[in-house]
Amino acid sequence: MAPSSRSWLVGLVGTGIGPSLSPAMHEREADALGLRYLYRRLDLDALGLRADQVGEVLHAARLAGFDGLNVTHPCKQLVLPHLDALSPDARALGAVNTVVLRDGRAVGHNTDWSGFARSFDRGLPDADLGRVVLVGAGGAGSAVAHALLTLGVRDLVVVDADPARARDLAAARAGTGAGSTRPAALADLPGLLAGADGVVNSTPVGMAAHPGAPFDVDLLPPRAWVADVVYRPLETELVRRARAAGHRVLDGGGMAVFQAVDAFRLFTGAEPDAGRVLAHFAELVGDTGSRTP
Amino acid sequence: MAPSSRSWLVGLVGTGIGPSLSPAMHEREADALGLRYLYRRLDLDALGLRADQVGEVLHAARLAGFDGLNVTHPCKQLVLPHLDALSPDARALGAVNTVVLRDGRAVGHNTDWSGFARSFDRGLPDADLGRVVLVGAGGAGSAVAHALLTLGVRDLVVVDADPARARDLAAARAGTGAGSTRPAALADLPGLLAGADGVVNSTPVGMAAHPGAPFDVDLLPPRAWVADVVYRPLETELVRRARAAGHRVLDGGGMAVFQAVDAFRLFTGAEPDAGRVLAHFAELVGDTGSRTP
Repeated sequence: MAPSSRSWLVGLVGTGIGPSLSPAMHEREADALGLRYLYRRLDLDALGLRADQVGEVLHAARLAGFDGLNVTHPCKQLVLPHLDALSPDARALGAVNTVVLRDGRAVGHNTDWSGFARSFDRGLPDADLGRVVLVGAGGAGSAVAHALLTLGVRDLVVVDADPARARDLAAARAGTGAGSTRPAALADLPGLLAGADGVVNSTPVGMAAHPGAPFDVDLLPPRAWVADVVYRPLETELVRRARAAGHRVLDGGGMAVFQAVDAFRLFTGAEPDAGRVLAHFAELVGDTGSRTP
Repeated sequence: MAPSSRSWLVGLVGTGIGPSLSPAMHEREADALGLRYLYRRLDLDALGLRADQVGEVLHAARLAGFDGLNVTHPCKQLVLPHLDALSPDARALGAVNTVVLRDGRAVGHNTDWSGFARSFDRGLPDADLGRVVLVGAGGAGSAVAHALLTLGVRDLVVVDADPARARDLAAARAGTGAGSTRPAALADLPGLLAGADGVVNSTPVGMAAHPGAPFDVDLLPPRAWVADVVYRPLETELVRRARAAGHRVLDGGGMAVFQAVDAFRLFTGAEPDAGRVLAHFAELVGDTGSRTP
């Protein structure tokens, strides 16, 4: 590459970000595109900062000439007061995972929802969007709900072990898309699954630290599709069982990849090769040894 | 290169650093060595900061995970109070041009003097180190004096248009090496040149903005060597005239290259190929069109 040409400096702010695959995904794709690109972890724990001090990291990154930041747990809301502007979707979600630093301004975006939406479009084209059950009403659930309603889901039912979280998410998403969103009790899940066109797991169940499946796939009608947001392992117990039972399945890799692809495009203006990033991601996840056979 | 492997993030702090060739030299050499390396300009003017706010830039760079900084005018002294430690040479010179950020500590070094020393060793081997006249007692002159005395000059005479600067530099360098250092008046320069084994220009005279030669080479004995610290153009009027008169000549490129080579080694621990950096530097200076034919 040309010396001292345009280069890109970005980072990831949050806690416990050591295992993040974003640095590898971004840097490898930049290499393939011939861009000089550095993606640094800015771990609040390592910096000795509290989550509510994320503004200090943002200030430092601006002063040090960063082109952007990804923002993750627990800072996706805490970063909001430190930004100069928000994209409409980030404003609607009240959460930012991507900050573009350009011309002296910090603009917040959210590529978690768009990442899920693009993954869904690609992995489950022509999926029935009538009644969809969303299990898990945390930050990932909020992004998934926004994506599903934007994609055209007509009846979104939100279930969470904490009824208040499910209510809050349903209320917050009331204005998204033309469909309706309603909370439901965990006790009603079996009946809801029996009448669902599709279901999404946005709880951490299925990760190595939270083994098992978040619900029983045998309760689903045969034609229902199943999506998971967990991507470590890609082949969660839910994904494995749903696939074995003949359901159309979307694993969590696509969301992880497309949130990175969308952030990369926002940072650089360059268009990543999504297929290449997906292949690299699968290799990285496989390399960790956490993918079940 | 391997994705998400070790990468290097460094910068240059100062004012008016737009034309600096350090980013290009460092990044091209890193490419040749297969290192993921970003060298960013942190221009105080662009950041809206005063020179005495260099500590804020240093703080931001530490927080943002920089591996090091080069420091240039007007911050080489101002940065001192913000550092955790100094190399012995940086302490002796009271000036830092390279800060290594590692393990939470900021350690100041000075590769201006070592850059001149290595350039001298390479370009003027076996030069007579008896009596040397140094013209120009600013920051560059201080580094050159330290280098000359460390190399073994026995009688160093410092001349400056400002007699106080010449006195101060001579006094500050009194303990360096085994030779003696003394100030002299500009009026004595002709006589000093006539008895010199070598002479170094460390004034800005010869740069495009300061055309001409700092002194008359015809005053030198034929066997005297001539060195310049100006490198834009490489072929200053002094260098051109001295070469035409048959003197052994060292242009300013070597000091510029070796201060970068030494900083690169301090930042990364990797050994740059000095010949390759020199060739790249000559190409860069030539490309600017400022090299006289």
